[in-house]
Amino acid sequence: MNPILCRISLPSSNVKRIPPARILHCIRASPSRRLSSQFPRQAMLTTELSEADVSALRANKERLWNYIHHSCQWGSGIRWGDGPTDTGMGRLSLSQEDKQVRDWFIETTKALGCNVTVDEMGNIFAVRPGRRKDVPATFIGSHLDTQPTGGRYDGILGVCSGIEMLKVLEEKGIETEGGVGVVNWTNEEGARFPISMVSSGVWAGKIPLSTAHNLHEVPTVASLPTASSAPETMKSALGKIGYLGTTPCSHTAYPIAAHFELHIEQGPHLITAGQRVGVVTAVQAYRWYRINVTGRDTHTGTTAFEHRADALYASAKMMVRAREIAQKHGGLASVGIVEIKPGSVNTIPGFVSFSLDFRAADTAIVEKCDAELREEFAAIAAEEGSGIGKPCRVEWVLDLDCPAVKFHEDCIGCVTKSAGAVVVDDAGQADPKSLYRTIMSGAGHDSVFTSKRVPTSMVFVPCKDGVSHHPEEFSSAEDCVTGASVILQAVVRYDRMRFKK
Amino acid sequence: MNPILCRISLPSSNVKRIPPARILHCIRASPSRRLSSQFPRQAMLTTELSEADVSALRANKERLWNYIHHSCQWGSGIRWGDGPTDTGMGRLSLSQEDKQVRDWFIETTKALGCNVTVDEMGNIFAVRPGRRKDVPATFIGSHLDTQPTGGRYDGILGVCSGIEMLKVLEEKGIETEGGVGVVNWTNEEGARFPISMVSSGVWAGKIPLSTAHNLHEVPTVASLPTASSAPETMKSALGKIGYLGTTPCSHTAYPIAAHFELHIEQGPHLITAGQRVGVVTAVQAYRWYRINVTGRDTHTGTTAFEHRADALYASAKMMVRAREIAQKHGGLASVGIVEIKPGSVNTIPGFVSFSLDFRAADTAIVEKCDAELREEFAAIAAEEGSGIGKPCRVEWVLDLDCPAVKFHEDCIGCVTKSAGAVVVDDAGQADPKSLYRTIMSGAGHDSVFTSKRVPTSMVFVPCKDGVSHHPEEFSSAEDCVTGASVILQAVVRYDRMRFKK
Repeated sequence: MNPILCRISLPSSNVKRIPPARILHCIRASPSRRLSSQFPRQAMLTTELSEADVSALRANKERLWNYIHHSCQWGSGIRWGDGPTDTGMGRLSLSQEDKQVRDWFIETTKALGCNVTVDEMGNIFAVRPGRRKDVPATFIGSHLDTQPTGGRYDGILGVCSGIEMLKVLEEKGIETEGGVGVVNWTNEEGARFPISMVSSGVWAGKIPLSTAHNLHEVPTVASLPTASSAPETMKSALGKIGYLGTTPCSHTAYPIAAHFELHIEQGPHLITAGQRVGVVTAVQAYRWYRINVTGRDTHTGTTAFEHRADALYASAKMMVRAREIAQKHGGLASVGIVEIKPGSVNTIPGFVSFSLDFRAADTAIVEKCDAELREEFAAIAAEEGSGIGKPCRVEWVLDLDCPAVKFHEDCIGCVTKSAGAVVVDDAGQADPKSLYRTIMSGAGHDSVFTSKRVPTSMVFVPCKDGVSHHPEEFSSAEDCVTGASVILQAVVRYDRMRFKK
Repeated sequence: MNPILCRISLPSSNVKRIPPARILHCIRASPSRRLSSQFPRQAMLTTELSEADVSALRANKERLWNYIHHSCQWGSGIRWGDGPTDTGMGRLSLSQEDKQVRDWFIETTKALGCNVTVDEMGNIFAVRPGRRKDVPATFIGSHLDTQPTGGRYDGILGVCSGIEMLKVLEEKGIETEGGVGVVNWTNEEGARFPISMVSSGVWAGKIPLSTAHNLHEVPTVASLPTASSAPETMKSALGKIGYLGTTPCSHTAYPIAAHFELHIEQGPHLITAGQRVGVVTAVQAYRWYRINVTGRDTHTGTTAFEHRADALYASAKMMVRAREIAQKHGGLASVGIVEIKPGSVNTIPGFVSFSLDFRAADTAIVEKCDAELREEFAAIAAEEGSGIGKPCRVEWVLDLDCPAVKFHEDCIGCVTKSAGAVVVDDAGQADPKSLYRTIMSGAGHDSVFTSKRVPTSMVFVPCKDGVSHHPEEFSSAEDCVTGASVILQAVVRYDRMRFKK
């Protein structure tokens, strides 16, 4: 192998670019070797593979399944069936169980030849070096934290498909041009620390590090074994489990080349249509608010309705109205957390704080719901307590604002080609094109934030009944491996595209 | 003084009686002494006082005020003004602060010549012996625990008026025929352990001791410094502060003769009408339920409304409907506690439990609301989730059922006569009868349970804006002392009535 001077060619992208291409010393493998259908052990560069070679790449179903369920021993949740894997998950971010699965992730990726970096948000980047040492790696990323009553696939499938990719490349003796890696993003769920995708958000420069570090855990989140009077900050929780890294959490300090994410759909479209793969082209817009309603504490037994400023009654009316308005505009509105003070049977609550999550395909619809709800909530608050001249007050605190996202055409192209290649085997007599489709994501994912900085896209696979954030969340081994094969090929195709001559 | 044989005459009552009258050795004081308007130090029996002597009895305003605010040093709550007493109270039952005020109560009543008994619910009975040693004492009773964001008068005024009665009797050299005492009932508020008046309920044989001892604290109650994952039982909390007494908590093991209670009105009637005293003749009926709603956890961003079984959305609709139905029937309905699982911004809650407190003047109205709400809640639950064939389920758990109470005519008579005697001084040119009125209590009190076993009634005084269960709850020193004078006279009158020859 001869060191030669070469210019790194980065793919065209509509997003802000990785620092300017540089002249680098690169290593090129001998062009004489050829990857046969038997994938000989001899190292072979991705750029030397044929299109048929790439299309033949497959993840291993049993191995992937084992990665998933082995990792679920830490933080197993509610049991719903008799089988060994028939439990949900309750692995809150930065819990002891999260530490254990993180340790396993590092150990496993190191054993597959990766270099591991932990940044100051606890994001773990495991990179298998490519032939060219000084270019950013292409990543498969997702998260290992779960909802308190979550399932075994949301996030976990994504990270495990990354590990499986590393394993396939090792097994097949494939060397990539740029490095390829797997990233585990911290607190994607936003369940313990109530900003979802907070750590990819910091990495993308969209959430200040201090905001994230000072974020307090939700004290009432189910099964959290800490005192409600002393909620922990994210920084302290990171330190406590030894994952407060020193590498700055930033897309400039730790650049990546592209981000692919495999995820269960979490909705009913693929399963209902009998389709195998969703090529995710966009993510719907959403906003998260905390709505604080202040009324007046008073006695339940002696206070006539017209003398009340009942913050909970006003909040209940707001919750009902939020759904009506979202429905009218074709969006979604949901309340997941309610905190009440003082919280006593015979005292009218003088203060209520509730989360409000609303979403729509279009940012403009979210804005419309927002404006309309502000008016309606103000009217509800003004009415409750007007009898005593002390109406309730309502305050809106924005926790997260994610406009609708469109993913990168290069990444979408790689996923589309790979989906076609993988499902062709399943097609039998059917048209393979009927087995995959483009799809919009209803949920937010770390890919939303990576897409602000680097080419990004996602792969969806079906899940049972479209249910997620529930212990019975389920995706079959067949569907999981289909998705893992698609994302494996997508990464290889992207690497070839990046460095094609 | 000659020991003589005498028969104890108990007042007529419509409630279950104290064990049969017995032949006792009694001591009768010399009839030669007479209580002058200067109240000489010489011991004088209540039965020897003239009607004018009794009507002249007054509590001491400054001393009562000092008892109240001295006791409020333990568990001071939210500050709302600049004055030294301008804070609310947050003295949850069996907290460290509750232990401190209990210790003070025992020390103070012992210094006033009382014998003190603590029963197995932590109720503290302090008795100043009367001339006749083997008859039950007449009590002034109330409670020293408060709501988490409560005020300085609810309960505290009642107990302090009892201490002030002891002090006046000592000061004026008055000996009662039967003993008189003050009782501090445990956990009247039901704020920490969610059955209000639970310990007078056990005493009255209306709540099983085991139910009360095993009652778990509300983990989310504001300012409670304990872990939500390990809520404490009442028995363990009693033991922890050293107030798990050995005397059985029972009206047979520890009989009392009658129960009087002074309380702020907690409503707007007296203050609005400019009246000084309410002679409480009845307590409205009420029921406390926990309503458990079970739906399905699922993702907020990917689950269309028609695919949801959102336990919180259903609960919010129920809360709104509960008020509408109570209003229709002229009753009250209130929700004070809401617990949500899993409690995450982006997961639809699959489980919600909320408290429901409804009340009405008439037990029949409470029953009507109950029946109607069950139907409505069932319909709301059935609708939410019907789109996926998994409708929400609703379960009603009864925590407390208090039918409407009528107090005892003898006690009401004593209070009425005393109110007239006390407010006559305030009347000036006005008719004293315009300054007091009969009134129904909207709130429950320990007197509800004592009334099941012994003659009982209550005295109300005005409170600012009718507000209670709020830090700014306030009753002026003038109003407090008016009430304390009324209850002092009422106890003396009752003692005279009991033993009149």
